[in-house]
Amino acid sequence: MSGPIPTSAAAIAAAVAGRRRKARDVVADVLGRIERSDPRVNAFTEVLAARAFDRADALDAALSGGATAGPLAGVPFAAKNLIDIAGLPTRAGSKINRERPAAQRDGSLVRRLEAAGAILVGALNMGEYAYDFTGENVHDGDARNPHALDHMTGGSSGGSGAALAAGMVPLTLGSDTNGSIRVPAAFCGCFGLKPTYGRLSRAGSFPFVGSLDHLGPMARSAADLALAYDAMQGPDPDDPVATTRAPEPVMPLLDSGIGGLRIAVAGGYFARGGDPEAFAAVARVAEALGAERTVALPEAHRARAAAYLITAAEGATLHLDRLRTRPGDFDPAVRDRLIAGAMIPAPFVERAQRFRRWYRNAVLDLFGGVDVILAPATPCRAPKRGQTHFVLDGVSLPVRANVGVFTQPISFIGLPVVAVPVWLDDGLPLGVQVIAAPWREDLALRVARHLEQTGVCAAPIAELT
Amino acid sequence: MSGPIPTSAAAIAAAVAGRRRKARDVVADVLGRIERSDPRVNAFTEVLAARAFDRADALDAALSGGATAGPLAGVPFAAKNLIDIAGLPTRAGSKINRERPAAQRDGSLVRRLEAAGAILVGALNMGEYAYDFTGENVHDGDARNPHALDHMTGGSSGGSGAALAAGMVPLTLGSDTNGSIRVPAAFCGCFGLKPTYGRLSRAGSFPFVGSLDHLGPMARSAADLALAYDAMQGPDPDDPVATTRAPEPVMPLLDSGIGGLRIAVAGGYFARGGDPEAFAAVARVAEALGAERTVALPEAHRARAAAYLITAAEGATLHLDRLRTRPGDFDPAVRDRLIAGAMIPAPFVERAQRFRRWYRNAVLDLFGGVDVILAPATPCRAPKRGQTHFVLDGVSLPVRANVGVFTQPISFIGLPVVAVPVWLDDGLPLGVQVIAAPWREDLALRVARHLEQTGVCAAPIAELT
Repeated sequence: MSGPIPTSAAAIAAAVAGRRRKARDVVADVLGRIERSDPRVNAFTEVLAARAFDRADALDAALSGGATAGPLAGVPFAAKNLIDIAGLPTRAGSKINRERPAAQRDGSLVRRLEAAGAILVGALNMGEYAYDFTGENVHDGDARNPHALDHMTGGSSGGSGAALAAGMVPLTLGSDTNGSIRVPAAFCGCFGLKPTYGRLSRAGSFPFVGSLDHLGPMARSAADLALAYDAMQGPDPDDPVATTRAPEPVMPLLDSGIGGLRIAVAGGYFARGGDPEAFAAVARVAEALGAERTVALPEAHRARAAAYLITAAEGATLHLDRLRTRPGDFDPAVRDRLIAGAMIPAPFVERAQRFRRWYRNAVLDLFGGVDVILAPATPCRAPKRGQTHFVLDGVSLPVRANVGVFTQPISFIGLPVVAVPVWLDDGLPLGVQVIAAPWREDLALRVARHLEQTGVCAAPIAELT
Repeated sequence: MSGPIPTSAAAIAAAVAGRRRKARDVVADVLGRIERSDPRVNAFTEVLAARAFDRADALDAALSGGATAGPLAGVPFAAKNLIDIAGLPTRAGSKINRERPAAQRDGSLVRRLEAAGAILVGALNMGEYAYDFTGENVHDGDARNPHALDHMTGGSSGGSGAALAAGMVPLTLGSDTNGSIRVPAAFCGCFGLKPTYGRLSRAGSFPFVGSLDHLGPMARSAADLALAYDAMQGPDPDDPVATTRAPEPVMPLLDSGIGGLRIAVAGGYFARGGDPEAFAAVARVAEALGAERTVALPEAHRARAAAYLITAAEGATLHLDRLRTRPGDFDPAVRDRLIAGAMIPAPFVERAQRFRRWYRNAVLDLFGGVDVILAPATPCRAPKRGQTHFVLDGVSLPVRANVGVFTQPISFIGLPVVAVPVWLDDGLPLGVQVIAAPWREDLALRVARHLEQTGVCAAPIAELT
């Protein structure tokens, strides 16, 4: 019962399970961290102190009574505010949604984490309706990058990345449609898992693009990521899209190394159109893994365009009534993209869907010869807050629409990816995508864990300055 | 070997199987009928005399040698020209498609009919790319209604209806996306089966709207329709959309009557918006069947609108490259509808697809309380050729787009339908849709057979005048 409270999920769970720490003390510590840091970071939109203490006390009482501790016993976590939290309207980063009735119960992933002993402490800031790569939000204020407060967190799971980088919680939940976990993981220098499409339940979350939405965990270590992932796996009758596969736990294999894995670097499209540092980060990871091969994902530029079209059109479909009746209550930058999406001709989208089937098959074929593919997570480090344009490969492009150039072609076909953080120098971090075949999260997580154990990747807590 | 050659498929097959008629004589008779009648009717775009005689001779030789006769032994038939015929380009009613390479082999349904002993004698006129309810074709000339040559056949399987009504063949193949079998069956006074979506293979046919296209038989009797249907059922590895169900033969049950069947008339949407005769035809059939109940298909007007949107958008997707490169080679009336379809915003189509799922479930629920539903096939009798507008319920509407108001909400969710012909007076015929739950073609065919046996429905051969 002495010494500082650990900051990793695994260490907290071990301490609480071993009765060396009370869950109440862990929660109090975390709430203090939030209180000190969040006014500058703006990662949280709700802090649920009373709920968290109630849960911690119940857990402490159960453990005192001899109950078995779950794998996440006492681990505080927070959820992107598009995931239902009982008693709160699910705002999904918007103003309009705040008028919705309060959620009746927590989203499935929150319930699963809590069933494993974790404790929800709050809801996290995000880009409006998840249509965002920046972490900016006109309604709640921007989330700020703890490693440089005048820079973007990335989005749309901006609060999920920032809360980790600021050391406020060891575990967060995000969502990723085109890169919304991987981008803030990269900009904030932490780990994020976008699982295989359908692997983790989306029940009790506000959607964006049904055929592209994924929920997943973010953490400051690959081990914590795997721990949380294992606790959330398994079929969910409340989500008809979720897999019916039984859980396939990763933790038992996590430290088995990378021996025998065939690892390649994505070439072609993924080796241009970004800053040199983005490719240097991939090269560093590749070198550490002994990955010398290059593979080309065929027509990746079309995959990105197709993901873009489907996102805009499906997102607009979801929001059509709101666009008609309450255009003034949207962030104008989001609204105008959705309006543009509402006018995309149907045949464009239909063709994008046809291409998607072709591309998926072509990429699956690649996995016959390789187990893991490496690619940049973003084309650059975190831009400055408010920055509207950046230059990629000599072309000035809008930031908001183009941060996901390397993430979109991967999520488009539902491949599992772990984004791992790389620090090339004293500057801001970069992210590398560790991509596996569908249902092989285990391989991507083993690689991430290896990179963590060998010191190639790390997610330090920022000193807020 | 004497007396006139019978005109029904069942009687031809019986005569050929019983060695009372040579297949060659049947083919010669049919070719003579085509030669005499088709110059006025324009149902055929190709007559395959040599192929038909070759096949007839082979069949006659086999039967002379003691071979077992198939259920369609010696039955001549013709196929809408969007179904592949080996050696011919599959024109699908268009000018552009004639430049395609010749088909390597016959479409699956042609092969199945021939495997049962039938003999293909030609390809049939149709509306361009099947986007048509009139039977008009600017490239091949209009098919003409044998019961009144200055009237439309209906479309798009116009030749398929006209060839039957003129007595040229006893059996034809058509396709039905929004009504293209049922409309010409109604206008030409014959029977047509639009099977359950997925029941009959579409392999080797030129598509229109993948999620709505059906192929099916047309005939001058319910018995012939069932005979042909049975010969074509069963999985087809060449068509990934086709059912994997084993064949469910209808013929053994065809004459089992309608005892115990719960038959209702579609009310609401299906009881207005047409000429009084259209509803009188339904009433006559309902009375003959003792059908006193009315059921309402919920939101049928939206189903029609949604089918319209999906058709226009998917059809435009299919033809987008041709619209861009060869607009002058389309029928302008078809081209302009496709161009309009190309500009439908994607969210409209996405919403139509969502509605479709809801509507399908709602209609399937209805079938818990009823076995067969009756509705008009068309809102009026065959308009005159060249007529561009008609008045429905006091509103002047374009003919081309609105003949399918009662067929579209049914095919939209893939229900099986038999269109049965009704003759109210000395005027042109009308059609009634006999609609069943998915995979219950047997019920619709039994009802059609009962109507035929009781004299309520008939498909006489027209005296061409």
